[in-house]
Formats: sequence, C-alpha cells, structure tokens
Amino acid sequence: MTKLLGPAFAALALATPALAAEVTTGRLANGMEVVVIEDRRAPVVVHMVWYRTGSADEPPRVSGVAHLLEHLLFKATDDMEAGELSRVVAENGGTDNAFTSYDYTAYFQRVAADRLPLMMTMEADRMNDLALTPEDVETERQVVLEERASRTDSEPGALAREQMRAALFLNSRYGMPVIGWREEIEALSMPDVLAFYETFYSPNNATLVVAGDVDPEEVMRLAEETYGAIPAEPGLPERVRPQEPPQIAERRVLFDDPRVSQPYVLRSYVVPERDRGDQGAAAALAVLGEVLGGSSFTSVLARDLTFEADVALFTGAGYDGTSVDDATFSLSVVPRPGVTLAEAEAALDASLDRFLRDGVDPGQLDRIKAQLRASEVYALDSVEGLANRYGAALSVGLEVADVEAWPGLLQAVTAEDLLEAARRLDRDASVTMWVAASREGLQ
Amino acid sequence: MTKLLGPAFAALALATPALAAEVTTGRLANGMEVVVIEDRRAPVVVHMVWYRTGSADEPPRVSGVAHLLEHLLFKATDDMEAGELSRVVAENGGTDNAFTSYDYTAYFQRVAADRLPLMMTMEADRMNDLALTPEDVETERQVVLEERASRTDSEPGALAREQMRAALFLNSRYGMPVIGWREEIEALSMPDVLAFYETFYSPNNATLVVAGDVDPEEVMRLAEETYGAIPAEPGLPERVRPQEPPQIAERRVLFDDPRVSQPYVLRSYVVPERDRGDQGAAAALAVLGEVLGGSSFTSVLARDLTFEADVALFTGAGYDGTSVDDATFSLSVVPRPGVTLAEAEAALDASLDRFLRDGVDPGQLDRIKAQLRASEVYALDSVEGLANRYGAALSVGLEVADVEAWPGLLQAVTAEDLLEAARRLDRDASVTMWVAASREGLQ
Repeated sequence: MTKLLGPAFAALALATPALAAEVTTGRLANGMEVVVIEDRRAPVVVHMVWYRTGSADEPPRVSGVAHLLEHLLFKATDDMEAGELSRVVAENGGTDNAFTSYDYTAYFQRVAADRLPLMMTMEADRMNDLALTPEDVETERQVVLEERASRTDSEPGALAREQMRAALFLNSRYGMPVIGWREEIEALSMPDVLAFYETFYSPNNATLVVAGDVDPEEVMRLAEETYGAIPAEPGLPERVRPQEPPQIAERRVLFDDPRVSQPYVLRSYVVPERDRGDQGAAAALAVLGEVLGGSSFTSVLARDLTFEADVALFTGAGYDGTSVDDATFSLSVVPRPGVTLAEAEAALDASLDRFLRDGVDPGQLDRIKAQLRASEVYALDSVEGLANRYGAALSVGLEVADVEAWPGLLQAVTAEDLLEAARRLDRDASVTMWVAASREGLQ
Repeated sequence: MTKLLGPAFAALALATPALAAEVTTGRLANGMEVVVIEDRRAPVVVHMVWYRTGSADEPPRVSGVAHLLEHLLFKATDDMEAGELSRVVAENGGTDNAFTSYDYTAYFQRVAADRLPLMMTMEADRMNDLALTPEDVETERQVVLEERASRTDSEPGALAREQMRAALFLNSRYGMPVIGWREEIEALSMPDVLAFYETFYSPNNATLVVAGDVDPEEVMRLAEETYGAIPAEPGLPERVRPQEPPQIAERRVLFDDPRVSQPYVLRSYVVPERDRGDQGAAAALAVLGEVLGGSSFTSVLARDLTFEADVALFTGAGYDGTSVDDATFSLSVVPRPGVTLAEAEAALDASLDRFLRDGVDPGQLDRIKAQLRASEVYALDSVEGLANRYGAALSVGLEVADVEAWPGLLQAVTAEDLLEAARRLDRDASVTMWVAASREGLQ
C-alpha cells in the first residue's frame, strides 16, 4: 500500500485493479488509511471504519472491554444523542452495525450513495467525541452480560470452544473470549472503557473502507474534511503482543454438558497466519482445509469417514489465517449414532495418515481450485464482502497487494505444498476436544 | 497484624507468642511491614526483605522480568559496586541469596547478629538506589537464559510441568513460568526492568523479616534509620490480578520427550488458597495431601497402589495454599515397569473412589496429625524456616494471626472435612498429564 503523508489530494494513491473492482488507496495527513472500492452497479455505498484493535489488544483483567466499547459507540456524542446514528441511518433507508474480533473492531453502514457525507460526519464524530456516562457503561454492561448469557453460557458448543481456545493458546490473548470472561465483564468500569477508547480510537489506528457507487477523489476529499480534522494519537502503542512459546505437548479437553444434543470431536492446531508478502504457507493451509473437509462431498474426510466407512454424519476442516499472530487450523467429526468419539477420532487420524501417504487426487485438487475461482467471481458481486475482505486484511497488517495476490496464491498451491502443510500440523501444538452430553459419552 | 502508621517506636506492636518463638510486628512510617522473630539460642540473625511482587504481577510480554530483576539486584548501586553486597556478607562469615516466586521476591542474608546494621544499610541501598546499566541487563539476561537452559530446557520434567501449568490456568498468570518463556526473556529490555523496579521495589510494598538473636525495639530503630529513609511509592498499584473463569472442562496433556527416563502420571486441580481469616478449606486440603500421598508409607495411595496392588513405584499428593490467588492440589503416580500410564491412572482414580466411599482410617488420621505436630516442633529449630514462613504468608496477604492459627487448624481437620475436600477436587478444574519417553509410551 502506498504510504503518503501529504495533504488529501497528494495522498490519493495509485488505482490498482483488484479482482474486478477498482481499488484505490490513500492515507490522510493524520495517518488514517483509506481504501475505496469503486463499484457503480448500484447507487449504494458501504462505509466502514476498522480500528486495528480487538480483544487481543486488551490489557489483563479487562477481557470484553473492546466489545463493550463497541456497544458504547452507539451512545451519545457531543453532537448526537444516544441511538441517533442508527436512527438517522434507518431514516435514510440504510442499515448499520458493528462487530468486534480478536484483531479489529469495525463499524459500518450501507446507505444510498448520496448519504455518504452524512455517514462520514457521524462516524468521525464518534471516533473522537463520545460523551459516555457511568450509566451508559452500566446499562451496556448488562446488555453484554445478557448477550453472553444467550450466545455463550446457553450454548454448550460455545462454552466448549471457549475452554478449548484457552487451553490451545499458552500465552497469546487469542485464548481469551472476545466477549470476555463473565466475571471480568461484570467488573468493567468507566475508566477501563475510556482508557481503551482514548488510546485506540484514533485516525492513525483506523482504516476507512468505502465501497460502492463513489468517486475515489471525492471520497478522499470528504475523508479529509471529516476524519482529517481529528488529530493523530501520539501515544498509540506499537502493536506487539504476547507470542506463543514453543508448544511441545499435545492437549486434550473433555467437555460434557447435558445440553449437548450431538457428540463430536474437534481438533485445533496452532499454525502460521498470513504475513505481509509471505502468504505461501497460509495459502497451502487454506486449500488443505478445502481438500480435507471443505463443503465438497468429495473432501478427503467425507470420502473416508462417510462414504467409504460408516463413521461420520459430518466432517469438517477449516483455516482462517487473517490474523495478526498465530492462526488455527481445525478438524471436526460428528460420529454416527453408535460410533464412539474414540472411534471417530481414530478414523480421523487414519484418514489423515492416508492423506499423508497418498496425497491429493489431481482431479479433486482441480475441482477445488475451480470452486475457489468460482467463489472469487461470486465474491465480486458483494460489495460488502469485498469491503470486509480489505478491511480485515488491512487491520491485521496485510496490504492491498496481499489481498490481491491471495486468489492467485490459492491457485498456485501444488499437491506437494498440501502434503507439506499437512505434515506440519503438529499434534504437540494442538488441542483435541471431545464434546458429549455426559461423562459416559466421552468414550 | 496490627497496622500502626505512627513513628517507629509507636509502630512497635504487640508481641504475640507464635509457636514457641517470640514474634513482634510493626510498621514503619513509610508503610514497610516489620516482623521480628526473637530466638536467642545462637548469636546469628536472618535478615530478609520480601517484596509483595512476583512473576504473577508482571505485565504481558515480559515474563521473567521479576526474576531477571532479582539477578540485577546484585549489581552496582550508587554506594556499592557490583557484587559488593555478597562479598561483604561472605567476608563477614555470612551467606546470602534471593528467590523469586509467583507472588513474591525475597532477599536474605544469614550473618552474625552484630552485623545486622550493615545488612540493613546495604539492603535498603539496593531497594532504592540500584544503578543499572544496559550492559548489566544484557549480561544477566544471558545468565538467566543459561539458567533456563539448564533448569528447564534440559529437564523434561520441568518442561512438562511448564506446559501443564499453562493448560491448567486459563486466565491467571500462574500459568506462566516464573523464569519466563525463553522468547520473552530474550526480549527483556532495560526499560522493562526499570519500570518493574521503580513500581514495585518500595518500602510500602515490602516486608522486613528479622529472625534470631535480636532485640525487637533495636530492630525497629535500625529499620527506621535505614529503610525508613526511603519514601513510599505513591503509584503502587492495587494488587488485583486476572482471576480464573469457571473451569468447566477436564484437560489432559500428553508429553513425550526421549530424555524421560521414567514415565509418570501427574494431575493438578485448581483449588482454594489460604485466605486471611478463612483458612479452613485450605487446612483440609493440606491434611488431605498428607492422607492421600504424604511421606507416610501408610498414605492412601501408597496403600492402594503399592502395597495392596503392584501398580506403582511411587505415589504422591501435595498442596501449597500460600498464594494470592487460586492454588493447586496435585497427585502423582509413577507406575512399575510393565504397567501402562492408563492402568496407573485407572488405579489412581479407583483409589480416590475408595477413599470417597470409605473415608480416612481414624488411626491413620491420628498418626498424620502427630507427624504434623512433630514437624511443627522441628520447624521451630530453624530460624530461617520460620522467617520464610512469615515472609511468604505476609507476602500473599495473610497476617501473623493466620500463620499462628495454621498449626491449630491442621489439627482441627476432621475425617468429614477430608471427605468434603476430596469431593471438591473437580475434574473439570484439572489437568492430567502423561509423561513418557515416546508417543508409544503414552498409553
């Protein structure tokens, strides 16, 4: 990504043809990154601000503060009443929302293209001028606790994954839940929230992504008028987080909860993430996920555990490498009734062994690459999906060039690359979890 | 403990008859706690300063900084050359050392009683006037890396326990090794060390323990002259650390390393620690450790796994509840040759089940209590041991009254208390580790 620190028009950088959409990048004088994805097919615009801060940037003892702050961004500012932003968006026929992840927090609106200036004015307002009260914090903390109750505490699968991640990461804060541990959410205070807001909600820690029926030069001009008026945060800390020590012992988690309706085996390995200019290993892992357990009925695990043997109702594999630090590669097996978890896991391991011996069928690899190409073409039809892709990538330290290189890297993965990626799935850097309704089911 | 904030002589508090030694407590005007254990049997003194700061007080990313700083306390101050303190102690016929744990860092000398003023002068000097250089940090970091290489990286048992603790604690920094993760030790910098020193090495964060042939009033007078001249640290943070979320899934760790000479099973549960004025549950756990796996050949595990069955070469159990946050209760079994780890663990669980059904034999409980009384009497003969006991307890938030109540609480534990403590050992709050020389041995 071109980094220019001059005034807005000078910051307007080269237009790079990404996928099929036109992507233009720039940077405001205060350091805010700008990505414009020009797509004139409909008179709408998606407007997003991505902060390069998520739950993994939280200090100790305040898990959940990033997500609580996301809720509080909908409260009053010096210029807006509580709820006003969402009300105005709705009155203008748009939708808005926000989300928090380990590595970023993002706010977005989708509206008619001519409402973009209004969106930018309101979003810039809450970047700098949130007017929180202790009552706001108290109220939203209760909302978040309800959210945790319904999405995590009432969902044995979510509870199980939470315990599993905590056992998977030995040092990284990726082991903490994004929503926060209940006891820590309950203790979150106004000063905790303000410290987080004042440090991280700054233009030099944010990426503006505007996608749709817009003119890039006009977007840059509007961005300088709105976000450009906010001073950079001089005390923004370098983004250096606890790293994993060598993982040298396989871990297992045995989770039983009477609410579990269907037992299953889930294994996660710690694996490399996508790195700027160095995405080859990640691309191989992404394709390996498709080959082993993708949606295709001809995936390796489905073939071995469902069609050739009568072991599994469902098998899955997946990798998401868009992260700042180490990523995870996961495998799952839901056994058929009468098959124990031990038998299901043994069948999973036998399938992995067979893959390491026989490799990938060339025809299958071709089919999967064709599917990946098709999904790329399909992705171009979603201006919101494209905006998400750039926003997430830039929030974890990737550049536009990495986003644009990714589809080609997936196509370039060879059968040998897949074997090498599979060989590197290290049991000593993994957790295998068994989930069942009772201790007796954990067999 | 009596807390008086007046001048030194006013701070001299009630003399409480602890065990058999005379224990006097007080507090300097700057907040430093003082414990004097008068024991006139030999003309020696043990002089200790305990900082209420250990590895669990470290911020993220700098694991090992508490321990590295302990090493650096032996470097130059404004008044002493590097190594001078230890050299002076040796020239006066004494010994000195230091140690770092999760909850405290302590420095001590044992010398002829008339050398106490010199010890206090030197120890007070390095509390406030350490004159570190970047070269000191670099040199000692290399020393610590060597220490880690020899004590941890070369010791499969130490590596295994390190991985196990990281899986046992989901949020608490008790999951991090005291010596630090190698990659984080390598990155420790002069500013990391100084920030830790300047915040935590302060009289209002320390306990002075003086034990031996001393007069309490004279110790208080000397303490005001030396330590009393150091200002309190106004920015000392409240000691509130990440707490464990509910632990709701049993974990297992499978550790293989070709250097393991003897396979074994080790299980640790997260259990309550000793709390000020509330040590009953901890006392029951301490006695339970003795009953299940103490040194007695008639412990429950030894009876079941070694004498009645031919399963184990060794069994053990243990609890150390002297900690700020949650403590651990551990069980171990070393199987006889030819017995698998699975068989050893099954025998361990069967023995626990039998204990929960049958409880403790009254004769055995009497014998164990008699042993505990004997070990108390024996402990009185070690002035250093007594000093450690008070120093550690006061460093984790206990008071002198708690230390003095502890032996009586152990004697008061009933057979029913033991059953209740055993029932509360929650597999969902535990890690069971198998250690062997190879994956094949992990069966």
